[in-house]
Amino acid sequence: MLHLQSSSTEGWFRRIEPHLEEVLIDHAHCEHKAAATAMSLLGSYIESRELCEEMTRIIDEELEHFFMVLDLLKKRNIQFRLQPPGNYGRELNKLIRNNEPQRAVDRLLVASLIEARSCQRFDLLSKHVNDPELAEFYASLFESEARHHTTYVRLAKLFATAEEVKKRLEELSAAETEIISRGHPLPRMHS
Amino acid sequence: MLHLQSSSTEGWFRRIEPHLEEVLIDHAHCEHKAAATAMSLLGSYIESRELCEEMTRIIDEELEHFFMVLDLLKKRNIQFRLQPPGNYGRELNKLIRNNEPQRAVDRLLVASLIEARSCQRFDLLSKHVNDPELAEFYASLFESEARHHTTYVRLAKLFATAEEVKKRLEELSAAETEIISRGHPLPRMHS
Repeated sequence: MLHLQSSSTEGWFRRIEPHLEEVLIDHAHCEHKAAATAMSLLGSYIESRELCEEMTRIIDEELEHFFMVLDLLKKRNIQFRLQPPGNYGRELNKLIRNNEPQRAVDRLLVASLIEARSCQRFDLLSKHVNDPELAEFYASLFESEARHHTTYVRLAKLFATAEEVKKRLEELSAAETEIISRGHPLPRMHS
Repeated sequence: MLHLQSSSTEGWFRRIEPHLEEVLIDHAHCEHKAAATAMSLLGSYIESRELCEEMTRIIDEELEHFFMVLDLLKKRNIQFRLQPPGNYGRELNKLIRNNEPQRAVDRLLVASLIEARSCQRFDLLSKHVNDPELAEFYASLFESEARHHTTYVRLAKLFATAEEVKKRLEELSAAETEIISRGHPLPRMHS
């Protein structure tokens, strides 16, 4: 359902487990970036009412999650701060084609894959984190991220045929798997 | 209260009156740009919880107004479309200093002046437009834009003393008056 070609390995969880605070800070940044991406897509394809409405819903939900993470950090006396990002988003963005409407398709599908990967990582965290409050928190976010994934794939079909979208999603998903399996030394949601 | 050094002239209204449809389309774009500006400020000053909360409220309201304008356009069978912008925003953005925290102060105060000018233009439109539905619509937006103006000025004080903010607001307001009184040939909210 999530169109991912590799499952998030427990290897990732073992690597980030000693750094759950840093991952939580990264998570807040991820929620903000997801909202900012939706705002950017709204601005680029502002003539599509359907896209604008979906982006507005996503902005609203992602910012709500952003504040939920900030509240959790505060409760645990963890200072929210800037952190150097991993390279996941940057590498994915390099795959986006320059000309429209291919650019729209790619931007939406890259956003869909990021949501899908977040979804898988939340699932993994909810099952393995040895902290009931945190495990429940991650479980609670799973559903909306899965919904966002589906929304982005559907919106891509405003700019290309279902067949073209399917083919491009397979290509981008293969590239995403390659990027995520390379890993990154920093403990991040998408390292 | 709005810190503007010139009132919106009725001259502007006479110039744009024959082009109210084009101004309405521009208005939708202005609401989107206001939301995008708030998202950008949230991202730049993400460590301030107070700023993030206010930006989230503003994003929410501006996008709500964006859809209100789209609904009005639809009701009137006016196609929402891309339009070349005036030069107001671009000219104002040139005034923003490059180094922090001055940059934060200027970005917030420029946003406050745009809200103030919108507010004045809504007031003028609500009083002069010979179309009850449109006049009432503009009147209904007046209050929230005035509130946004005040919020932005208050947030600037997170980055400078009240005295510095006051002085800089006077400087930027003088520059804004100069830009708006130069005018622009396209019929726009801020032409």
